Amino acid sequence: MLKLEGVISVLPTPFTAGGQIDFESLRNIIRLFLEAGVNGFTALGVTSEVSRLPESEKKQIVEVVVSEVNGRVPVVVGTTAEGTHTCIESSRVAAAAGASAIMVSPPRMPKLNSHSVMRHYKTLSDAVDLPIVLQDYPPVSGYAMEPSLLLQVIREVPNAIAIKLEDAPTPLKVARIRAIAETTAFAIFGGLGGTYLLEELLAGGDGAMTGFAIPEILIEVVRNFHSGDLEKAKGFFFRYVGLMRFEFQEGIGMAIRKEILRRRGAISAAGVRPPGASLDASTARALDELLAWYRKEGCPWI
Amino acid sequence: MLKLEGVISVLPTPFTAGGQIDFESLRNIIRLFLEAGVNGFTALGVTSEVSRLPESEKKQIVEVVVSEVNGRVPVVVGTTAEGTHTCIESSRVAAAAGASAIMVSPPRMPKLNSHSVMRHYKTLSDAVDLPIVLQDYPPVSGYAMEPSLLLQVIREVPNAIAIKLEDAPTPLKVARIRAIAETTAFAIFGGLGGTYLLEELLAGGDGAMTGFAIPEILIEVVRNFHSGDLEKAKGFFFRYVGLMRFEFQEGIGMAIRKEILRRRGAISAAGVRPPGASLDASTARALDELLAWYRKEGCPWI
Amino acid sequence: MLKLEGVISVLPTPFTAGGQIDFESLRNIIRLFLEAGVNGFTALGVTSEVSRLPESEKKQIVEVVVSEVNGRVPVVVGTTAEGTHTCIESSRVAAAAGASAIMVSPPRMPKLNSHSVMRHYKTLSDAVDLPIVLQDYPPVSGYAMEPSLLLQVIREVPNAIAIKLEDAPTPLKVARIRAIAETTAFAIFGGLGGTYLLEELLAGGDGAMTGFAIPEILIEVVRNFHSGDLEKAKGFFFRYVGLMRFEFQEGIGMAIRKEILRRRGAISAAGVRPPGASLDASTARALDELLAWYRKEGCPWI
Amino acid sequence: MLKLEGVISVLPTPFTAGGQIDFESLRNIIRLFLEAGVNGFTALGVTSEVSRLPESEKKQIVEVVVSEVNGRVPVVVGTTAEGTHTCIESSRVAAAAGASAIMVSPPRMPKLNSHSVMRHYKTLSDAVDLPIVLQDYPPVSGYAMEPSLLLQVIREVPNAIAIKLEDAPTPLKVARIRAIAETTAFAIFGGLGGTYLLEELLAGGDGAMTGFAIPEILIEVVRNFHSGDLEKAKGFFFRYVGLMRFEFQEGIGMAIRKEILRRRGAISAAGVRPPGASLDASTARALDELLAWYRKEGCPWI
Repeated sequence: MLKLEGVISVLPTPFTAGGQIDFESLRNIIRLFLEAGVNGFTALGVTSEVSRLPESEKKQIVEVVVSEVNGRVPVVVGTTAEGTHTCIESSRVAAAAGASAIMVSPPRMPKLNSHSVMRHYKTLSDAVDLPIVLQDYPPVSGYAMEPSLLLQVIREVPNAIAIKLEDAPTPLKVARIRAIAETTAFAIFGGLGGTYLLEELLAGGDGAMTGFAIPEILIEVVRNFHSGDLEKAKGFFFRYVGLMRFEFQEGIGMAIRKEILRRRGAISAAGVRPPGASLDASTARALDELLAWYRKEGCPWI
Repeated sequence: MLKLEGVISVLPTPFTAGGQIDFESLRNIIRLFLEAGVNGFTALGVTSEVSRLPESEKKQIVEVVVSEVNGRVPVVVGTTAEGTHTCIESSRVAAAAGASAIMVSPPRMPKLNSHSVMRHYKTLSDAVDLPIVLQDYPPVSGYAMEPSLLLQVIREVPNAIAIKLEDAPTPLKVARIRAIAETTAFAIFGGLGGTYLLEELLAGGDGAMTGFAIPEILIEVVRNFHSGDLEKAKGFFFRYVGLMRFEFQEGIGMAIRKEILRRRGAISAAGVRPPGASLDASTARALDELLAWYRKEGCPWI
Repeated sequence: MLKLEGVISVLPTPFTAGGQIDFESLRNIIRLFLEAGVNGFTALGVTSEVSRLPESEKKQIVEVVVSEVNGRVPVVVGTTAEGTHTCIESSRVAAAAGASAIMVSPPRMPKLNSHSVMRHYKTLSDAVDLPIVLQDYPPVSGYAMEPSLLLQVIREVPNAIAIKLEDAPTPLKVARIRAIAETTAFAIFGGLGGTYLLEELLAGGDGAMTGFAIPEILIEVVRNFHSGDLEKAKGFFFRYVGLMRFEFQEGIGMAIRKEILRRRGAISAAGVRPPGASLDASTARALDELLAWYRKEGCPWI
Repeated sequence: MLKLEGVISVLPTPFTAGGQIDFESLRNIIRLFLEAGVNGFTALGVTSEVSRLPESEKKQIVEVVVSEVNGRVPVVVGTTAEGTHTCIESSRVAAAAGASAIMVSPPRMPKLNSHSVMRHYKTLSDAVDLPIVLQDYPPVSGYAMEPSLLLQVIREVPNAIAIKLEDAPTPLKVARIRAIAETTAFAIFGGLGGTYLLEELLAGGDGAMTGFAIPEILIEVVRNFHSGDLEKAKGFFFRYVGLMRFEFQEGIGMAIRKEILRRRGAISAAGVRPPGASLDASTARALDELLAWYRKEGCPWI
C-alpha cells in the first residue's frame, strides 16, 4: 500500500496573461519543488483553482503532472465532487492518467449527515482501486467531520489511508484523532498553508499537504522534527511562520501564492482566474515589505 | 428580445434503475408538461440534480430537451459555475445546443462581494449572446443579493432580462425589487416549489420557474391571475398548496418530486443519484395519504 | 414525571405601540388559547422574540404566564444560552417562577461538537431539577444534532424528556429517531409553524410545539389523529395548511403571526421589536386575500 | 470628540477555579497592560466571553474596569445585542458606568440586510450619547458589511467614529475602505489577535483592538510604525507574529490567551466558562515549546 509522508505540495494552476493554462510554468514548479525535496504532489486541490477548471483541463493537468513527476514521488489527485457518480468518474480519469491516490472531501449537499458521508466513501472505495486521502475541509463541503467519523471512515473504508485536515484548530484535531485511533495505522497531514505545521507534528501529525509557495521551509521543519532535532525544526518554523501566515489570507491567498512563485522564477504570470481576486496594490506592497525583511534575515529561498 | 412569462418548469433528470440518464422519460416529462401548457422549460437547474452530472451528460440533456421542445416554448439552461471562465464555456455549449437563455447564480466563492458579482455577470454578458436569468439562490452561492444589487445587475448587464427568486420570503423580495425598479422592464419568477406563487404574483411577480411535479396547478393560478380572475386563482392555489408544500422538503424533495412524476406515468423510475436521498418508507407513506386525500377532493392531475 | 403532549403553543410577546411589553394582551392570548384547548404553553421561545428581551422582562413574562395559566396546563420556558452558566442561571429563574419544564437548544459557539453538546445538557440536568425539552433548531445554535446524538442525550441526560424538531425535513427526522429509539420513551414535537404536522404525526411524532396563531387547527389535527380518525385529521390539515405556510415565512413570519392575533382580538398591537421586520403593505395585502378566502371557505377561527 | 488610537486591549474575564469572576485578576491585567502602555481597553468583547455573562456580571465588570483604569485611557464597552432595544439598554448601562465609547456589531438576525443594519445604528446613535465603534465581525452577526456600507454608517450615523475589523483579509479591507473614504475622518482598528497588524497599518489602519496576551509587542509595532521607523516595526512584528498566530486559534484561543496571562502572573487561574474549551494537554505542550523558543530568542515579556 502507498505510504504518504513528509511534505506534499498542492500545485497551483499557472495561467498565461490570456487566462490559458501555462503548462510550462506548471512543469517548472514541479521541477523546483522536486529539487527542494518535496515528498509528493497534490494536483487539482483548492490551491489549484480546481473549481474553475473544466473537465478537459483537469485531465490535461493530471497528465502533465504525472508525466513531469515521472514516478519520483506520489501524485495525489483531488476528485471531490457533489455526486458520488461524478466523483467516481473523475477518480477513474485520475487513475487512468497515473494518479497514485485521490483526495476526496465529503460531497457538498444540503442535509448531509454522517451516514451519507460514509456511504459516499464506501461506494467510491468499491468503485476505484486507488488509495483515498480524506479531505476534512468544512468550507468546501459545508460539513465538519468529527474525529470519531474520520476514524470510522479510515477503519471501514478499505482504500482510506490518510486524513488531510483544514478544520482549525488542526493541532487539537490531530490530537483528538490520535487519542482514539489506538493501533489503527494512517497518516494525518495538516493543511492551512503550513501555519500550524509544528504544532500539528507535536500533536501526532505526519506532515503537511498544502500549497505554500516555499516548501523548502516546510521540508526543513518536517525533516528535522522526524530526525529528532526539535530545536532545529522549531527554529525553521518560528523564524518563517510569518511568511506562511501572510500567504494564507482568505480570498487573496491564491494571488499572493502565485506572485511569490512568479518572483521565485517558477511561473511566468501570477494571474488568478475570475472571480478569484487578483493581487491588489496594497497587498503587493505588504508582500514587498515582507520579502525584503525575510531576505535581510537570511532566508535563502526568496 | 426573448420574453419569459408564465410557468417555466425546471426539468428533473430521470435515471434508470442502473443510474444512467433515462432520456425517454425526460422526453415524456416534456410532452406531459407541454400538453399541460407550460410556457417554457429550464434544463440543468438544481431540480435537475445538475451538480451530479458530468459535462458530457449536461450537453446531452440540453440537446435532448431542445430537440423535444422543438421551438414550441423557450428553453432556459442553467450554467452556474464557480469560475467565470467555466460559466462562459458552459454557456457557449448551451448556446450551441440551441438554448433560448441561460440561468446563472453568483459564483460560489469565499469572500464574494457585490463588485465581483457584478463583474461576473458583465463578463458573461460580453462573452455570450444569450439572455440571462439571474438566479437568486443563496444556498447555492452562499451569497444573498439585496434588491438594489439585483436591480443594478438588471440595469447594467445588457443581457440580463429576468430574476428568479429563491431567497425567502420571496413575495416580500418581489415587492422590494418592484418598489425601486421604476420604469425598468424585466420579469421576476418565483421558485420555492411554487409554495408562495399567489403571494409572489400579488406582489408583482410574473410567474413561476420551479420543478413542481404538477405544473397544471401553477398554470391555473398564473393564467387566472393574469386574466383578472383572482378568486379562481386563489381557489386553485389555496386548494392545492398543501401539495407544493409537501414536495418542497429540503433534502428529500427531489425524491418526492420524482415519485409523483413516476406515479403520473411520466418517468419509469424515481431514483435520485447519490448522495441524494432516496424516498424512505415514512415519506412514501405520507405521500400516499396526501395523494389519496387530494384525489378524493377531485384533483384531476394525480 | 411531567408528560408533554398534544399542542403546546409558543407564546409571542405582544408590545404596546411604544414598544413596551403588553402584559394584558399576553394574558388575552393565554385565555384564548386555553379556551381553544391547547395542552401547554412555551414561553420565551424564538416566537417570543426572546433574543430581544432583557433578563428582567424575561422573568416578568414567565411570572405572568405561570400566573395566568394557573396550573391548568404545563408551562415550558426557553432558557437557551451561549454559556452553560447562564443557561443554568436562567433555568433556575424559570424554576423559581413556576415553570413546568425548560426548553434548551445547544449553545451557539464556534467549533461546537457532540461532546460539548452532551456535556452542556448533562451539567444543566445536574444543576436544575426540571424536565428538559431538547430544541433541535440549527439556525439558533449553528449546529445540527443527528438522530443518534439526540437519542444519546435523551438516554444519558436524566431530565431530558422530549425533543422539539425544527430541522427540516422534520417528518423524516421523526422517523429516523423513532427507528433507533427502541423502547426508550420520550415525546417528539414538531415545530416549523405546524406546516408538516400531519406528516410528523404519521412518522411517530406526538404533537406540535409552535407559535401558529390559530392553534385550534393544530388541535383538531392532533386530536383527530390520536383518536384514530385519520380522515378527519387530514381534512383539517390539508384544508388549512395554506394558512400555516403563509404565516411561516422567514424574516416576516413574526409580524404576520402578531397581525393575525391582533385581528382575532387577542392583542392590541402587532408591532415587532426592531430589528425585526414589521408588516409591510405587500404582505398585509396578501394576508387580506388569504384570510378572505379561508373565511369564505368556512374557517371558523378567523 | 473622543479619539481612539494605538493599541486597545480587549480584556478577558478571569474566573476563579469555582467559575466566579476573579475581579482582582481583572484589575491585575489592567495594571499590567497600563504599565505596558496600552492606549485603551475594551470590556465585554468576544475575548471577554461576553456571551457567557449575565447582565449583572457585565455591569460589575464595566464598573471595575472603569474604576481601575480611572480615566487614564478610554474604556470601550461591547454592547452588541440581537435587539435594538436591548442594545440601547446595555449601552445606557455602560454609559452610566462611565464607558468612553461602545462597540457594536450588527444584530444577529435571519434575513438581516443593509437597511436594517443602518437603522439599528441610527436608532442607537439617537438614543445613546456615546461614540460608537462599528464591529465588523461576520461570525458574530452572520453578516459581512461591505466597505461601502461601513463607510455609509460612518458618514450617516453621528456617533460612529471608528471601525474594528475582524473580516479577513483585514489589510485588504482597510485598503478598500480607505480607497473610498476621501476626506471622511475615522479610525480603523484591526482585530484577529494582531496576526495582520503590520499589514493593516501599511494599508491605512490606525492600530489594534484585540485581546492578545502580550500587548507590549503590538505597542512596539504601532509606536515604531507611527514614529516612522518601519524597519523597527517590522522587526518586532515578524519576530513575534508566531506568538499571535498560536494564540489566535479558533475554539481554543481563549484558553491559550488566559494560560499565557496566568504564566505572566496576571491572573490566578486560566479557566474558561463552559461550553468554552479548556486547555488540553496537547495544546499546553505546544505552548511550552513555543514559549521556550521565544524566551530563548530574547522575548522579554514571557
